Amino acid sequence: MRENLHATYLIRSSADAIGARAQALALEQSIEVPLAALTDARIERDVVAQVESISARGSDLYAVRLALALETVGDDAGQLMNMLFGNSSLLTDIQLEDIDLSTAAATRFGGPALGIAGIRARVRVAERALTSTALKPIGSSVAQVSRMAALFADAGIDVIKEDHGWAESARSPFRVRVPACQRAIAAANRGKDEHESLSQYAPSLSGDLDQMRVQLRCALECGVTMALAAPMTMGCAGFQTLRREFPQVALLAHPAFAGTQIAPGALLGKLFRLFGADAVIFPNHGGRFAFPRDVCAAIAAGNRAPWLGLKPSLPTPAGGMSVERVAEIISEYGRDAMLLIGGSLLIARDQLAARSRAFVSSVAQASDAVTA
Amino acid sequence: MRENLHATYLIRSSADAIGARAQALALEQSIEVPLAALTDARIERDVVAQVESISARGSDLYAVRLALALETVGDDAGQLMNMLFGNSSLLTDIQLEDIDLSTAAATRFGGPALGIAGIRARVRVAERALTSTALKPIGSSVAQVSRMAALFADAGIDVIKEDHGWAESARSPFRVRVPACQRAIAAANRGKDEHESLSQYAPSLSGDLDQMRVQLRCALECGVTMALAAPMTMGCAGFQTLRREFPQVALLAHPAFAGTQIAPGALLGKLFRLFGADAVIFPNHGGRFAFPRDVCAAIAAGNRAPWLGLKPSLPTPAGGMSVERVAEIISEYGRDAMLLIGGSLLIARDQLAARSRAFVSSVAQASDAVTA
Repeated sequence: MRENLHATYLIRSSADAIGARAQALALEQSIEVPLAALTDARIERDVVAQVESISARGSDLYAVRLALALETVGDDAGQLMNMLFGNSSLLTDIQLEDIDLSTAAATRFGGPALGIAGIRARVRVAERALTSTALKPIGSSVAQVSRMAALFADAGIDVIKEDHGWAESARSPFRVRVPACQRAIAAANRGKDEHESLSQYAPSLSGDLDQMRVQLRCALECGVTMALAAPMTMGCAGFQTLRREFPQVALLAHPAFAGTQIAPGALLGKLFRLFGADAVIFPNHGGRFAFPRDVCAAIAAGNRAPWLGLKPSLPTPAGGMSVERVAEIISEYGRDAMLLIGGSLLIARDQLAARSRAFVSSVAQASDAVTA
Repeated sequence: MRENLHATYLIRSSADAIGARAQALALEQSIEVPLAALTDARIERDVVAQVESISARGSDLYAVRLALALETVGDDAGQLMNMLFGNSSLLTDIQLEDIDLSTAAATRFGGPALGIAGIRARVRVAERALTSTALKPIGSSVAQVSRMAALFADAGIDVIKEDHGWAESARSPFRVRVPACQRAIAAANRGKDEHESLSQYAPSLSGDLDQMRVQLRCALECGVTMALAAPMTMGCAGFQTLRREFPQVALLAHPAFAGTQIAPGALLGKLFRLFGADAVIFPNHGGRFAFPRDVCAAIAAGNRAPWLGLKPSLPTPAGGMSVERVAEIISEYGRDAMLLIGGSLLIARDQLAARSRAFVSSVAQASDAVTA
């Protein structure tokens, strides 16, 4: 019995050519050989991708839905990316718009280990939207960055993540930086009463899979519960391996290198969730990046909508946000979201603590407004 | 002393805005925070990327060259990709056009272990262009695919690679498929005289870094000397780790997911070489993909030009080539290239052996013509 997963592609094509384009796509994303070369009927029946539908979406724009044989993918995230779009990413007139798979297949990939509820439990915040900021700038000393971590934790920021530029620099290597920041945050947490959130630290993983494992073990040993990793830079197979090996860690997915011809709603919204991101950071509209509002909404929907029994990922709009926009962002994404504001806190310089507290209280107030 | 690497970006912008865009890019690809937030003079001096030049390239198109601090990268290929283009890949009006680094920095990354000369030694071909084909279609049984491997080796094809769609399928898992194909090819090689090339087999690696290591060790144990991997799918850091751990294996880089806003000349031409690809497969113009001729020429130049003391990678034009185009391809790329023809051999069906021999003899003849 052939099991399928489904992928929808947007293709720029004339009406005359779209049938052949769709068929060529089905071959490109499965057997990479013309049907005329096939000598085994099983392969045509069970392996070749099938064109399920072709529908017009506009002038010279078509949506083509393919059924891809699950036997070509298994439960390997890297192979899924390959079969969905590996070769076709080299074409310029095509976008992977959406994916769909069975609950059984999704269960094999696994999805978030913690999801929104797990992150909420870690920071001890039941209902309001969450706050996040970033430890910046890279190049700071361990003393500088751990002081900043303490300040953010004292101000009540829920998740204090590192920029993805932190790595194994000689000046502040992971094994020195991370324990110092974690100690600073844990010390601040000890002074909080039970109505306050518990700040959590998410260091940035870098290097190959082995180096990331060493980093994660080092982080876990000193009490860290979250980590930042970029699936498109490290490879989705490796991201999923971290997910499987470290189910106790909340994985925040960073969007570095996610600017592909895969629609962000499919990539950041669904695929990152499928591979196990507990939170998904994405560039919100109106910031330093160009994702339009509807694309951001599609990411958040992909993260949170009921889907194949997977836990929801926490949508985390970011990329040039400011405290002034908090109410607007929460009115758009609601409470099951995390607001990530980095640089625009830091420009307050010696008013950083006050600015951070203003961020925290704005999110609390705006969350209340969303209830009402 | 600040050490730099250099990156050139093409940006669509008005003349009025380009100065600010260039400065914003320098911040995005280094500290991710406005300069106004900096309190440490060392970071501005040693860490922040610097705008080295801005030059017009056309109407509302500018080339911006940045100096990125090497201390933010080290020798980690993943981190290099991050710092070159991680965040900016999320913008739509920018392309990473070129990179440049010092010989000392390039030496730390390492480049190809074998390069063109090493591949030539393995296949025992001193001067002519090389031939390559692909084992297709995925979904074939081990018996089918190993028979095909024997046929190609008998026909004298130099490098018999697998499609990147081969993975750990239940029907033909790596540990069964690869020894069978290698035995078939080795048996064919034993019948060859010293003037014939020795066919080499390049199985496709899949999964995470650990799975790839297991696959490579399995392959090495049965005599395989080459392997196929896709740096953009598996992550460049992992690709480089394979390079470092398996210097005896010729790594063929597959272009899956290389359709980014990084110019192919920079990504496939230079970065894949920097990270250790002994051969670089790319979609040639006039085939199933849309890379124009000058882009393909830039890839081949990046692979082969003297550069920072790194061995040259073998340019491998592919993606819908045919035997009829052999002379044209060799007249364009010369002898230090490998021609990869897959599907258009297979459509010969029961004439596959004859068609494969025609490919081999065409390449030999066309190589002679290039000498003359």
